[in-house]
Amino acid sequence: MAMEGYRGFLALLVSALLVGFLSVIFTLIWVLHYREGLGWDGTALEFNWHPVLVVTGFVFILGIAIIVYRLPWTWKCSKLLMKSIHAGLNTVAAILAIISLVAVFDFHNAKKIPNMYSLHSWVGLTAVILYILQLLLGFFVFLLPWAPLSLRALLMPIHVYSGLFIFGTVIATVLMGLTEKLIFALKSPSYSSLPPEGVFTNTLGLLILVFGALIFWIVTRPQWKRPKEPNSVLLQPNGGAPEGVESSMAMNFGNVDKSDSELNNEAAARKRNITLDEAGQRSTI
Amino acid sequence: MAMEGYRGFLALLVSALLVGFLSVIFTLIWVLHYREGLGWDGTALEFNWHPVLVVTGFVFILGIAIIVYRLPWTWKCSKLLMKSIHAGLNTVAAILAIISLVAVFDFHNAKKIPNMYSLHSWVGLTAVILYILQLLLGFFVFLLPWAPLSLRALLMPIHVYSGLFIFGTVIATVLMGLTEKLIFALKSPSYSSLPPEGVFTNTLGLLILVFGALIFWIVTRPQWKRPKEPNSVLLQPNGGAPEGVESSMAMNFGNVDKSDSELNNEAAARKRNITLDEAGQRSTI
Repeated sequence: MAMEGYRGFLALLVSALLVGFLSVIFTLIWVLHYREGLGWDGTALEFNWHPVLVVTGFVFILGIAIIVYRLPWTWKCSKLLMKSIHAGLNTVAAILAIISLVAVFDFHNAKKIPNMYSLHSWVGLTAVILYILQLLLGFFVFLLPWAPLSLRALLMPIHVYSGLFIFGTVIATVLMGLTEKLIFALKSPSYSSLPPEGVFTNTLGLLILVFGALIFWIVTRPQWKRPKEPNSVLLQPNGGAPEGVESSMAMNFGNVDKSDSELNNEAAARKRNITLDEAGQRSTI
Repeated sequence: MAMEGYRGFLALLVSALLVGFLSVIFTLIWVLHYREGLGWDGTALEFNWHPVLVVTGFVFILGIAIIVYRLPWTWKCSKLLMKSIHAGLNTVAAILAIISLVAVFDFHNAKKIPNMYSLHSWVGLTAVILYILQLLLGFFVFLLPWAPLSLRALLMPIHVYSGLFIFGTVIATVLMGLTEKLIFALKSPSYSSLPPEGVFTNTLGLLILVFGALIFWIVTRPQWKRPKEPNSVLLQPNGGAPEGVESSMAMNFGNVDKSDSELNNEAAARKRNITLDEAGQRSTI
């Protein structure tokens, strides 16, 4: 299916992938070259998994998960497949985020450094908890077939908003984390004399911010949204909706598709579509 | 004009105003009670204007400026009046942001502390520069009547996106700034022992994040967008468009109104509307 402004999309997608990939590489160079390296022994080597896993999972993979419905090459794939990929990427990101927390708690405990005192930790833990709730909500309401349409219609704008809010909050938390670490770690020469590690890690912070900006631009362009599947429910005598009928969950603020359905029969299909129309109108432009 | 979901809007607006106002009050209590107070003498008293002015102008006033088109009581006001209020609030916010920078540079220079080494300063200065460019773009393209419709249609999605991106970046920068200040200032007892000032200022950080979340929710609900003015151009023999004809610039990702016009005559109105329709379709759902 043709995408409007395909070249612009491609340029932005390649930029996002490049900047996201660079962010991960910069994080690895930071911990391997400027810091002590990686390990799992309660020392700084274990702490270093924290930024690596957060930037890889909670920034890069989460960013890709957010825009995965917008890749035009996937528009011929079934909606269920795309939902599974979206859920799978987010599950990987959540697992990496949780391991990254284990790394930092282990390190703190081994070094007798208090946990959960900084604004970074308060906001970061909140983001991880919200993310797990979001993942569970997505799994039970949107991936499994049993949630009623009215519930899906009600929760879709919240799901979309929460995903983007969590992503933005994670980026803010990463910037706070880099700030903390640079102040703690750079003593001689100090951070304020802007040694090479300071310039390098500030640049990493800017890269992560630019990655976020690109993902936000891509995901809020209405013309790049996955097209609605034609509502083929009424064409099916038994009313069974093929996967392809499921509505687009592509990011689009507050825009709920009217065809998200697993319907049992034609009458129910009509009735529920009316309900969904009403629900949809409350959150549709 | 009736607003859909008016009670929900009202609840969220009151919450946003309350949380935003609390953020300003918390910042004042922080610098007046926990820190040294306010002054303009190159000491920490001058530095303290930095958080006060940023939270007041660059967070609270900017947040209100973003949602001002969505207040249903203003929907009967002319578009030009609303644009002027939007521009006026943003100008006040920009002035406060610039004074806040002067305060911190003055303080650094007096204390021989280097400027512009931290990630906070890199991201923060970028945000202020982008904000001034955004203000100039808004003034010349959208407030003054001379920009061609095609240019307005082209730049509106960028204007909306940039405004929200800058707002989000400012919040991330504030969280970095609070982190820096708490690490530098809290020595005995240290930040890691979480003294009352730490709890208080972490709470301030959360309040600012919640304020941002509320503004983002309000501004991305399509049903709360300022309604399009009926295009009365064609009803006017001389084609002069009254202020009320100007299109909604309410925040709505990528949605460009088709009626934003100061048109000289009916023929030009028709011609330009076609151009704008085409331009609009590229960025309209």
